[in-house]
Amino acid sequence: MSVHLVGAGPGDPGLITARGLELVRSCDVLVVDELVAQELVAEAPEEALVVSRAGMGQEEINRLLVAYGSAGFDVVRLKGGDPFVFGRGGEEALALAEAGVPFDVVPGVSSIAAVPAAALIPVTHRGVADRVTIASGHGAGGGEPEYGALAAAGGTLVLFMGLERLPRLCAGLVAAGLPGSTPTAVVSRGTLPDQETVTGTLADVAGLAEGLASPALVVVGDVVSVGVSLDAAASARLVA
Amino acid sequence: MSVHLVGAGPGDPGLITARGLELVRSCDVLVVDELVAQELVAEAPEEALVVSRAGMGQEEINRLLVAYGSAGFDVVRLKGGDPFVFGRGGEEALALAEAGVPFDVVPGVSSIAAVPAAALIPVTHRGVADRVTIASGHGAGGGEPEYGALAAAGGTLVLFMGLERLPRLCAGLVAAGLPGSTPTAVVSRGTLPDQETVTGTLADVAGLAEGLASPALVVVGDVVSVGVSLDAAASARLVA
Repeated sequence: MSVHLVGAGPGDPGLITARGLELVRSCDVLVVDELVAQELVAEAPEEALVVSRAGMGQEEINRLLVAYGSAGFDVVRLKGGDPFVFGRGGEEALALAEAGVPFDVVPGVSSIAAVPAAALIPVTHRGVADRVTIASGHGAGGGEPEYGALAAAGGTLVLFMGLERLPRLCAGLVAAGLPGSTPTAVVSRGTLPDQETVTGTLADVAGLAEGLASPALVVVGDVVSVGVSLDAAASARLVA
Repeated sequence: MSVHLVGAGPGDPGLITARGLELVRSCDVLVVDELVAQELVAEAPEEALVVSRAGMGQEEINRLLVAYGSAGFDVVRLKGGDPFVFGRGGEEALALAEAGVPFDVVPGVSSIAAVPAAALIPVTHRGVADRVTIASGHGAGGGEPEYGALAAAGGTLVLFMGLERLPRLCAGLVAAGLPGSTPTAVVSRGTLPDQETVTGTLADVAGLAEGLASPALVVVGDVVSVGVSLDAAASARLVA
């Protein structure tokens, strides 16, 4: 009996891992993030206890996992994306380790590459980008991100953020030295049936993306143009 | 009928996605990378044609996918990790799009986070690292990576590479300004049964990692210390 920190993937329920799905199907207790697909929650055994983390702080979740794990239940902590990529899974793992509760980590498909892929944008592409930097669109403590370091990183930038911050983020990157003409895409609700993608440049994408729904992910760099070519070729095929 | 570019995950066959496994189980043709687990290849229908890409160049693979796809077969192109993260899946997608062959992309669990996770290292951690840069340990065309940009990126660095380049990589990052004391881990054959992890600093990890097997992934940054704490707590629990 132990606690499994399992990544549910980026949204589409088909993108959970085979092992993750197997663990959900045999658990005693399922502790889920709000954004996890209902189809996955429905895979838990009928007699399993399902707990939503909605409204709970991180400390409370940690205590809950330790309590259920110590009591000998087989617990699945199902987290959006990957538990160890912007998922605070490290904090849950530390709390379990310190309490002496056995745990393991089952990685998931992270939004960082799956959401761009769902919009046909490869985050790396030969001759276009050989590296990628992933960051939150707000800095530690909710402040501004380090625009200078992000602008200097080179390669592709992938930014998680609330859309209300998009105009400030684009302006910050341009002020830090990225050309306003840098290709930029905003992918709203990536991998879900109502996914929407808007492409433009750092200078104009914030205006174009107005009204899109959260969660959203921003991709900055020349790989966005690869995605536009792919999308055009794929669409031309459909109307041919 | 179409071509599915499917990520097989980082090595452990349980880490393929549920949708990816379903597509493998119903395909006509399976084109696989050399590093893909035999357990996954064995999931293809008995009557399916299995083609290994061993010894093929990228152009040849592209032609093969276009040929099978045009002929009306249901083709799964099963790639290690995620097709769109250092996977050259973008090139295969472009070739298919240009030839008018329908295709889709099924993202996979990328090694970039799953391999550190398998060594209990979160690539981001609150108060420790709020961003991560992922790069190949060799630059475009096999030359040196841009050490200056990597050293200036801040946050966690995750580097794919052949282990024979490790001494040069560590020296290059230190010469570009990263302290020799920066915590560094090398994870060899991550997520596989013979996984091995060595931790140290940029100054000493190359010596410590001598003799490890490929493929390997290098993690540079303070999150490595989080991993060491987690591992110590988990091990203390086992001997307690």
